[in-house]
Amino acid sequence: MSELHTILPVRPLTRESFAPFGDVLETDRAEIRLINGGTTERFHALSTASVDPDGRVIISLFRGQPRRFPYRVDMMERHPLGSQAFYPLADRPWLVVAAEDENGAPGEPQAFLARGTQGVNYRAKVWHHPLIAVGEVSDFLVVDREGRGANLEEQSYPQPYIIEDGGWT
Amino acid sequence: MSELHTILPVRPLTRESFAPFGDVLETDRAEIRLINGGTTERFHALSTASVDPDGRVIISLFRGQPRRFPYRVDMMERHPLGSQAFYPLADRPWLVVAAEDENGAPGEPQAFLARGTQGVNYRAKVWHHPLIAVGEVSDFLVVDREGRGANLEEQSYPQPYIIEDGGWT
Repeated sequence: MSELHTILPVRPLTRESFAPFGDVLETDRAEIRLINGGTTERFHALSTASVDPDGRVIISLFRGQPRRFPYRVDMMERHPLGSQAFYPLADRPWLVVAAEDENGAPGEPQAFLARGTQGVNYRAKVWHHPLIAVGEVSDFLVVDREGRGANLEEQSYPQPYIIEDGGWT
Repeated sequence: MSELHTILPVRPLTRESFAPFGDVLETDRAEIRLINGGTTERFHALSTASVDPDGRVIISLFRGQPRRFPYRVDMMERHPLGSQAFYPLADRPWLVVAAEDENGAPGEPQAFLARGTQGVNYRAKVWHHPLIAVGEVSDFLVVDREGRGANLEEQSYPQPYIIEDGGWT
């Protein structure tokens, strides 16, 4: 890889580190309500789905091919009109990449390693990389928006960021 | 079990059999969109989350204790103000029980065996039994409603229905 690039460090996904971008969906430190006659623990309202008035909240399933490493992060996308949540359906680690906005373009990306029991909900307008499955074909439940209006923006980086192979598989 | 009761047959969960109650969340026969540069299949809009104007759509995680069989269905509940979706996080069968409304009370229940790759979204106002996990403690991602107003009704059956042990574990 001879082009100019920056190596992107990968940090563990935590509520604190991900706070600028949205919520981490995980049972740790969630509010627990005992329901259904004590047979069910409800880890309550890990996040809220938000959509504009023209939008509806829909439930979809994404089936992601595993990415190859070193992985080249050269673009980001965002959804101006609604949040987008991902939750893994196999207990397998995956990668989350998000960035703060800088005058309408994604700033330096931040990469997070999510456990197989951690999902995320990107807030509306938050720059993020498309789904990065690791190791095997991986299914995710997705809660996002459908409706009128343009809900996808994409931007390329002038110079790529590289995620090295972390041996996560 | 000497009391008067009715044995409840358990049918496979299909889109057709569940249609009076809501949507089955499954990839079979779903609309597929190839996204993210061809790396991801999006099984699009398996269902829509619906809430009243005072409500928000929230994402929670339910952790259900396994039920013992024969299982006694003696009550049902419903959520007048919003839909409620369940999707299993382990590939393990589980049971879905729903009923049509008869003058404000649940009619005869219908029981469905869901595969570990099938979720359901109960429409608002649909009578259903609380979560029935089978075999082991089981986690489910849940998409339902939070907000002002009474969103839970419960009703007992005058006589119980019994689900016999189907050896699903």
